Amino acid sequence: MRMVDLIEKKRDGKELSKAEIDFIISGYTKGEIPDYQMSALAMAIFFQDMKPEERANLTMAMVESGDRIDLSAIEGIKVDKHSTGGVGDTTTLVLAPLVAALGVPVAKMSGRGLGHTGGTIDKLESVPGFHVEIDNQQFNELVNKNKVAVVGQSGNLTPADKKLYALRDVTGTVNSITLIASSIMSKKIASGADAIVLDVKTGSGAFMKDLEHARELAQAMVDIGNNVGRKTMAVISDMSQPLGFAVGNALEVREAIDTLRGEGPKDLEELCLALGSYMVYLGGKADSPESARAQLEEVIRNGKALETFKTFLSAQGGDTSIVDDPSKLPQAKYTFEVEAATAGHVSAIQADRIGTAAMLLGAGRATKESTIDLAVGVMLRKKIGDSVKQGESLVTIFSNREDVKEVKDIITDAYKIVSEAVEAPPLIYDEVRVK
Amino acid sequence: MRMVDLIEKKRDGKELSKAEIDFIISGYTKGEIPDYQMSALAMAIFFQDMKPEERANLTMAMVESGDRIDLSAIEGIKVDKHSTGGVGDTTTLVLAPLVAALGVPVAKMSGRGLGHTGGTIDKLESVPGFHVEIDNQQFNELVNKNKVAVVGQSGNLTPADKKLYALRDVTGTVNSITLIASSIMSKKIASGADAIVLDVKTGSGAFMKDLEHARELAQAMVDIGNNVGRKTMAVISDMSQPLGFAVGNALEVREAIDTLRGEGPKDLEELCLALGSYMVYLGGKADSPESARAQLEEVIRNGKALETFKTFLSAQGGDTSIVDDPSKLPQAKYTFEVEAATAGHVSAIQADRIGTAAMLLGAGRATKESTIDLAVGVMLRKKIGDSVKQGESLVTIFSNREDVKEVKDIITDAYKIVSEAVEAPPLIYDEVRVK
Repeated sequence: MRMVDLIEKKRDGKELSKAEIDFIISGYTKGEIPDYQMSALAMAIFFQDMKPEERANLTMAMVESGDRIDLSAIEGIKVDKHSTGGVGDTTTLVLAPLVAALGVPVAKMSGRGLGHTGGTIDKLESVPGFHVEIDNQQFNELVNKNKVAVVGQSGNLTPADKKLYALRDVTGTVNSITLIASSIMSKKIASGADAIVLDVKTGSGAFMKDLEHARELAQAMVDIGNNVGRKTMAVISDMSQPLGFAVGNALEVREAIDTLRGEGPKDLEELCLALGSYMVYLGGKADSPESARAQLEEVIRNGKALETFKTFLSAQGGDTSIVDDPSKLPQAKYTFEVEAATAGHVSAIQADRIGTAAMLLGAGRATKESTIDLAVGVMLRKKIGDSVKQGESLVTIFSNREDVKEVKDIITDAYKIVSEAVEAPPLIYDEVRVK
Repeated sequence: MRMVDLIEKKRDGKELSKAEIDFIISGYTKGEIPDYQMSALAMAIFFQDMKPEERANLTMAMVESGDRIDLSAIEGIKVDKHSTGGVGDTTTLVLAPLVAALGVPVAKMSGRGLGHTGGTIDKLESVPGFHVEIDNQQFNELVNKNKVAVVGQSGNLTPADKKLYALRDVTGTVNSITLIASSIMSKKIASGADAIVLDVKTGSGAFMKDLEHARELAQAMVDIGNNVGRKTMAVISDMSQPLGFAVGNALEVREAIDTLRGEGPKDLEELCLALGSYMVYLGGKADSPESARAQLEEVIRNGKALETFKTFLSAQGGDTSIVDDPSKLPQAKYTFEVEAATAGHVSAIQADRIGTAAMLLGAGRATKESTIDLAVGVMLRKKIGDSVKQGESLVTIFSNREDVKEVKDIITDAYKIVSEAVEAPPLIYDEVRVK
């Protein structure tokens, strides 16, 4: 088999066989196939795309390129959730204890990563004492006992994907549904997921700016999952503005607690119920997503969700008193209000700018070496559709430094206020259910 | 400027500016732009193609990537001819003295190259004493005096094209009209041509198998030439079978002499007259290609063409007595006939197989280190449309070894003989004249 022939085959719109895809991915991982051939193939895939079977084979070839996490010691169906990213996405913090409260095992492996705020582990570390210094056996035991635990990512998962992703980034081949879908799905499968729930974001703050492409990506990932024996469902949700109110680490933990208590932002709660009902359904703890949803609402109402959160924190050394007294979470020294220059109605909030504002305050990492300030961030006071008076606060800034002029300017720029009334955007655009 | 942005621009079907193309080619030549970005761009060009202006800019950027031959010391309009390759193409040997006889300067720079037979210099070296060991000044003087001289290629011409060509070969991006056309034209322009006549081959033995693509390539090259101030014309000629009868070095020299005398194969003569009339016209020695043709026929008839060939050979040390006594050219020890197994009519001759047969006999170079046997090769006795009796010779093999079984088998396979009458294919399919 010669790589150049396979590039030409794909270039001419033909299907690659499983053996051919395995040859490509294994050769690329080992360095036998050079970057310049892989980038030409990636561009050919961009134009000619891949059939569902090719996508499934590509995904599994990437899974097989490295280590795979073995979760077999954990009882039950391990359901993982993935979001395609956005700003102020607190869903993981809410969903983990929420579905665990219904007996769905949540064996969460998380990285720290770069971004507007820290990763799930960073956020949880704003709880005094909380740590992820547990070994695999402890991790498995904790999930079996409490149905939820979080640990740092370990092992060399999907090296082919890491290498290909870096290559795509510099060769104009990021925007291929096939390559995006197989990248995401390979990571989830290598992490040991039995079933997967996807939250595909769409809108100005998302990677997929328009609904059509978001729907295409969701369908592609659901097809891959189901073709490789992992039941997969997807929700397409709005990211035309940040989700919830909080963007920051401790601020999001606090918002998650509010939501688990039934007192969180309505959009965050609604999305958590939608994703959670799929997780509970795929986890085999409900006959339908609809009955799962009723159960989720019940564990919020009766306090079991919040109780599970406390058990989870406590098992990993966390001080559970923060749940009832959030002032024990890291607190920023200063708060500032970003005031509306004119009265009117909020018609747009550029989510990526809000994220940048949080990042500039110190909530996220720009490079691997950056230190995160867990206390800082922003709280949105107004969202799309809200009416606002002149001088009223749009956003509260939580900062550890006094000079926040640049941050204020960015936030002011991110808001668009118009005179006519504006309707809030829908939260969930579509769903792709398992066949 | 970032290469990744330019890749995405082309990927999305937009036009690249001259500054952008210069950035790409100069960066790639210097090694600042890596192969993996260049191959992704090449694949994007394969799918999205380039507009005429982009093609012209790409060509000139490749010209400027290396040395350029300065032919300004040579009087007159230097017209170069290029053929897209085929089997048994003796046109250069005929055309050089033919158009020189009418005062068009032929400053031929030639390589040795790999192929079924040697390059022009190898072929000419079958004339005893002939050599190309002349310096630039001597070369210029010879062309000014005799209107024709041949020298080995020197200088680092179009390094960008060399690098890109090698990359295209392994990344499935050879078959792009834009990339083929700019590669050919950049080499001609860097070699100092003022005007260019192109012979684009089509048919089973050519790179462009079908007429449509050959026409597209011819038009692309003519447009590039005229857009960068080099008058360019093209002929699209048949390569569904070898041109002329001879495939081999000394054999082709002999065939060229026959043709200059008006006694050569009709197809070879006709193509030389077609290409030659464009060369003479673009060289400013005739008012139209039609009147140029009449002049060319005249110098063949009155012996001036052959006389010019002798003067040319003699000026570079060649023994001109071979012209009247071709037995002084290198002679193969053995000849063998490939006989027709059945009577009928020749309906196809796979040119590439005939080329392979000549190569196996030792007429060409498989690697740079191979030594060429100037005496060996094949002479076709039957061409498409000819009728043949059982046992009649299809091809004569000229060999320096006795065992030619494999060569015979290849030639037998290359011929297709059918019972019904067959019409000979047209020689010239189309022409693209300067606007």
